[in-house]
Amino acid sequence: MMRDPEKTRKHILETAFWEIFRNGFNGVSINDIISKTRVTKGAFYHYFPTKNDLGYTIVDEMLIDMTLDRWVKPLAAYRNPVQGILSNLRKKIEESSNDSLGLGCPLNNLIQEMSSINPAFREKLNAVLELWISEIEKYLKKAQKDGYLKKSANPRQVAEFVVTAHEGAFGMSKSYRDKKLFWSVYHALWDYLNTIGTKPYSSN
Amino acid sequence: MMRDPEKTRKHILETAFWEIFRNGFNGVSINDIISKTRVTKGAFYHYFPTKNDLGYTIVDEMLIDMTLDRWVKPLAAYRNPVQGILSNLRKKIEESSNDSLGLGCPLNNLIQEMSSINPAFREKLNAVLELWISEIEKYLKKAQKDGYLKKSANPRQVAEFVVTAHEGAFGMSKSYRDKKLFWSVYHALWDYLNTIGTKPYSSN
Repeated sequence: MMRDPEKTRKHILETAFWEIFRNGFNGVSINDIISKTRVTKGAFYHYFPTKNDLGYTIVDEMLIDMTLDRWVKPLAAYRNPVQGILSNLRKKIEESSNDSLGLGCPLNNLIQEMSSINPAFREKLNAVLELWISEIEKYLKKAQKDGYLKKSANPRQVAEFVVTAHEGAFGMSKSYRDKKLFWSVYHALWDYLNTIGTKPYSSN
Repeated sequence: MMRDPEKTRKHILETAFWEIFRNGFNGVSINDIISKTRVTKGAFYHYFPTKNDLGYTIVDEMLIDMTLDRWVKPLAAYRNPVQGILSNLRKKIEESSNDSLGLGCPLNNLIQEMSSINPAFREKLNAVLELWISEIEKYLKKAQKDGYLKKSANPRQVAEFVVTAHEGAFGMSKSYRDKKLFWSVYHALWDYLNTIGTKPYSSN
């Protein structure tokens, strides 16, 4: 067992994240996670008294950062945020394998599995989704102010649709295990965003 | 216990469908389902030797019909299938409550929960999704032939995007438990389809 408490806690969290990502929250037991982490039961329960505590901590400490790191922070590098949304999505699809797409999106997986059976889990997961949408909305408002998005476009509605298309594409790719579906959604989203943008976007 | 074998079997299937829809496939046990159906264990196992048999039968005998009944057959009533897709979606949102949207879509729920952990389940669920997409594609090809869809549009890509938007909206609504998100996706889909249609669609 590791002697550094902070390291031990992080190690449990990361191991649990991957086990839950692959098998679902109800598809893994605390004993599965303990045996994968190789920490003692006592150490495990010291950090996470219940399985729900573990799940909530994964949402609060990992899913929020992962969502911002993957889908929001990269947009800062683009002068035109709408171009940024498309280019970032394109990069993420290119970096994914058919197998990794078959696992879905960690946030979407937990939302679908837990929202209707655990209200506290639903609230925490919804806060991540709402953060993602509202950050995209901020970028779209900036795009509108800077003349990249038509004045007639509703940034909140577009942000909701963009995030729905991302999560929908992850959900469908989980079924197809094939990037083709994801590319198809990317091209349709490109067409859609082009109609509300003020200039044609580069497809690169 | 009911004496009519076909009725007993249907009763088990329908009860199991709702239990699984509400709680997830891994969230209900065979004993939960048996106690809700009020059939004997012997009768249950006679029809469904394993929980997977029950799950597969729900997909093959219920989800295929439900998907066609809700999302494909209604399109036959519209001369312009693209208008049909929008009007049917509008009706379905109007008929839904925030609570019912909180349960998600039965097909999407099972895809997200089971695809990465059970390959046989994934194949069966993917067949339903593929049927839905290919039926929408047929309608879009007809729309294109009849001059309702621009020649530049790719019917397969549009069909994939339409179904992704539907399932994405169900997935997001499960988190928000609020029709507003679903309406937002509807309006964005309306904008998108308008750009590839040859005439403005009615929003009714």
